[in-house]
Amino acid sequence: MPDGGFAYSHLFAKDLPPPAPRWTGFPKYNFIGGHNDPARIPAAALAEAATAVLRRRGADLALYNFDGPQGYRGLRQLVVDKVAQRPAIKCTLDDVLITSGSGQAIDLVNGLLLERGDTVILEEFTYGGALTKLKRLGVNIIGAPLDDEGLKIDGLARIIEDLGHKGIVPKYVYTIPTVQNPTGSILPSRRREELLALTRKHGVPVFEDECYADLTWDGAGPPSLFAIDPQQVIHIGSFSKTLAPSLRLGYAVADPQVMSRLVACKREADSGTGALDQMVVAEYFSRNFGEHVGGLTQTLHGKLDTMVEAVEREFGTAVEKMWYPKGGIFLWLKLPDRVDVTKLLAPAAKAGIAFNPGPEWSCNPGESKSHLRLCFALPSKDDIRAGVAAFARVCFEETGVPEQSANIRRAATPG
Amino acid sequence: MPDGGFAYSHLFAKDLPPPAPRWTGFPKYNFIGGHNDPARIPAAALAEAATAVLRRRGADLALYNFDGPQGYRGLRQLVVDKVAQRPAIKCTLDDVLITSGSGQAIDLVNGLLLERGDTVILEEFTYGGALTKLKRLGVNIIGAPLDDEGLKIDGLARIIEDLGHKGIVPKYVYTIPTVQNPTGSILPSRRREELLALTRKHGVPVFEDECYADLTWDGAGPPSLFAIDPQQVIHIGSFSKTLAPSLRLGYAVADPQVMSRLVACKREADSGTGALDQMVVAEYFSRNFGEHVGGLTQTLHGKLDTMVEAVEREFGTAVEKMWYPKGGIFLWLKLPDRVDVTKLLAPAAKAGIAFNPGPEWSCNPGESKSHLRLCFALPSKDDIRAGVAAFARVCFEETGVPEQSANIRRAATPG
Repeated sequence: MPDGGFAYSHLFAKDLPPPAPRWTGFPKYNFIGGHNDPARIPAAALAEAATAVLRRRGADLALYNFDGPQGYRGLRQLVVDKVAQRPAIKCTLDDVLITSGSGQAIDLVNGLLLERGDTVILEEFTYGGALTKLKRLGVNIIGAPLDDEGLKIDGLARIIEDLGHKGIVPKYVYTIPTVQNPTGSILPSRRREELLALTRKHGVPVFEDECYADLTWDGAGPPSLFAIDPQQVIHIGSFSKTLAPSLRLGYAVADPQVMSRLVACKREADSGTGALDQMVVAEYFSRNFGEHVGGLTQTLHGKLDTMVEAVEREFGTAVEKMWYPKGGIFLWLKLPDRVDVTKLLAPAAKAGIAFNPGPEWSCNPGESKSHLRLCFALPSKDDIRAGVAAFARVCFEETGVPEQSANIRRAATPG
Repeated sequence: MPDGGFAYSHLFAKDLPPPAPRWTGFPKYNFIGGHNDPARIPAAALAEAATAVLRRRGADLALYNFDGPQGYRGLRQLVVDKVAQRPAIKCTLDDVLITSGSGQAIDLVNGLLLERGDTVILEEFTYGGALTKLKRLGVNIIGAPLDDEGLKIDGLARIIEDLGHKGIVPKYVYTIPTVQNPTGSILPSRRREELLALTRKHGVPVFEDECYADLTWDGAGPPSLFAIDPQQVIHIGSFSKTLAPSLRLGYAVADPQVMSRLVACKREADSGTGALDQMVVAEYFSRNFGEHVGGLTQTLHGKLDTMVEAVEREFGTAVEKMWYPKGGIFLWLKLPDRVDVTKLLAPAAKAGIAFNPGPEWSCNPGESKSHLRLCFALPSKDDIRAGVAAFARVCFEETGVPEQSANIRRAATPG
């Protein structure tokens, strides 16, 4: 600190995150985060949408929350119409709250239900952002077992019963039933019914995150949990994945007893979600949702195939398990136990590669050190191939695994 | 609750805000909030800006935080250029954090510095939103005295010294030096120097909110506190007031030791601020800031004059004090002590009138029951005249004050 400077360190609150390093750009092979395919951003159509909606409603930008605290009516109507299709949810404008990304919807639901020391149940592998938020809230996180179809209901039942013996009722079960993050599974209808019957019996709300549910390869999927029980379930979704993550738009759909509280909490949290983002997305998607999402899904499916081929070619039998996703933007892998992916982060970064290490996407970090998540929406197919090859090379250099690449035995780089 | 329904009430966290009532639209005479003049929204130019920037950078929307976690470079550059003018701040892109409204900037600074039980000093009359946030955080709020030029430095000195005797160092002094909210004063340069010398002596950071500082009637104003001491001061501002509040855009400017922490806290708080709002505002304002703000200020000044005339006509000498603002969008008034404005809220609402009661804008609510804030940016001049007349009528019916309207003695409405 220069002479006469002002020192803050002793003034900072406890438990702050560490200082952010200066941002130096994205890695060359960027396999993390919910980024989307840049070629699939309909820039010209969004510009037309902006022009049309600003002509109609531009003057309304002068007001905070000009359509009320639940968000722009056009976007709420889009949500109502959209969820009436695939997840088969019947709701009205009053049941929808537009949020600044589905991340804010998670914050609001957490704020509504959770206090330090509470217990929640998540899927054993789950969205890293949800885990981060819960850890900061000081909540006990229990992971329920998954198989290739999603949540195992018998395993969940045992957890809830065990908690019951200790006098603990979990505050919610957080689940991503359709295109589970990170395993990409879709929970079958029968299990959905069983999940709701089980949690209802124990008085546990279900927090359903459908962030990726619009991106299934076949464009279909069973009715959402909320469609089956609109009281017991709080449902959230996003436009980040179907259109563009930098437009921060998500939504919650909930019963009035919950919605009236979520709206109150949102009013305390901010002064509304950015209106232009809302208006432009509503304008564009009210005409193009099906077509846009159909094209995007096709692109994503093609990139997934490229990534699966690259992983099989570069890692071969070193991949103990690969969860082939039924939609979405990510591939979840298990390498041999002796590979600790957290030790690959730094050398991979040095080689321009970023990936999500298993422990950050797991309720049991210690047991997920050889898992990892690779996102494929952002990089080009060439970068997917080159990046996976570069990653396999880093992995081999650090761990001796994988020993082969496309049937050719690897050798350590000399020197 | 219907049979077989699911009850949440016992699951809710403690200390939630009360449920939000269903939104039924805006009041006819809307004298609250930071709304702007609808006729001053440049809808066509914003559409052009959207088209231009989407053509150039549209594909980038596929990435979260495509210019890094501090926000869109174009908007940060605009902030750098803008604050180099009037408030005379020299800073770089790395010193600026774009936030989702200046409200988020307040949240981030609070998160950085405050813990339950801490003490902060605010101006005795101050921004209600800041008070609400601090109350929720469980912080002790002390109001420092104001006069017609802003913060009284001798009064502030006594408060800091008294706290020192109790072993308390306040975590910050929050001040709105240029177009103070709600009094509209501008703190003279000499007092700014004295404020910084005083707080520096005691090791207290200064939290400078310049939300309205671009809207002075003469387009000028002394250098900001941050311009004088960029280490000790954390500076925030907004585009809500200069352009449109429903575009949720604010900013913080801070020393690297603070900025690196604010960025880390923002990364935990959200996944970035809506990109389209940022891009369009940067594109439009980088060409039109001076012209736009000049025109807007002229409009606002005209509406203020209409409101002052209406208040003088309708309330006459019943206004004990009127703070004629040097810029901005609000007028702060004091009625006789026997008028408790909180008791006017319901009858005013019934007559279609909304206003900010003094206690919500005051560190000492009990002493501010006869103060009120009237915002004049949103309503038309006709609505200002009619609304103030209707409000005076409500006030007379409830309290017997004001007794006269435009020299005509009021009579109670029969029946």
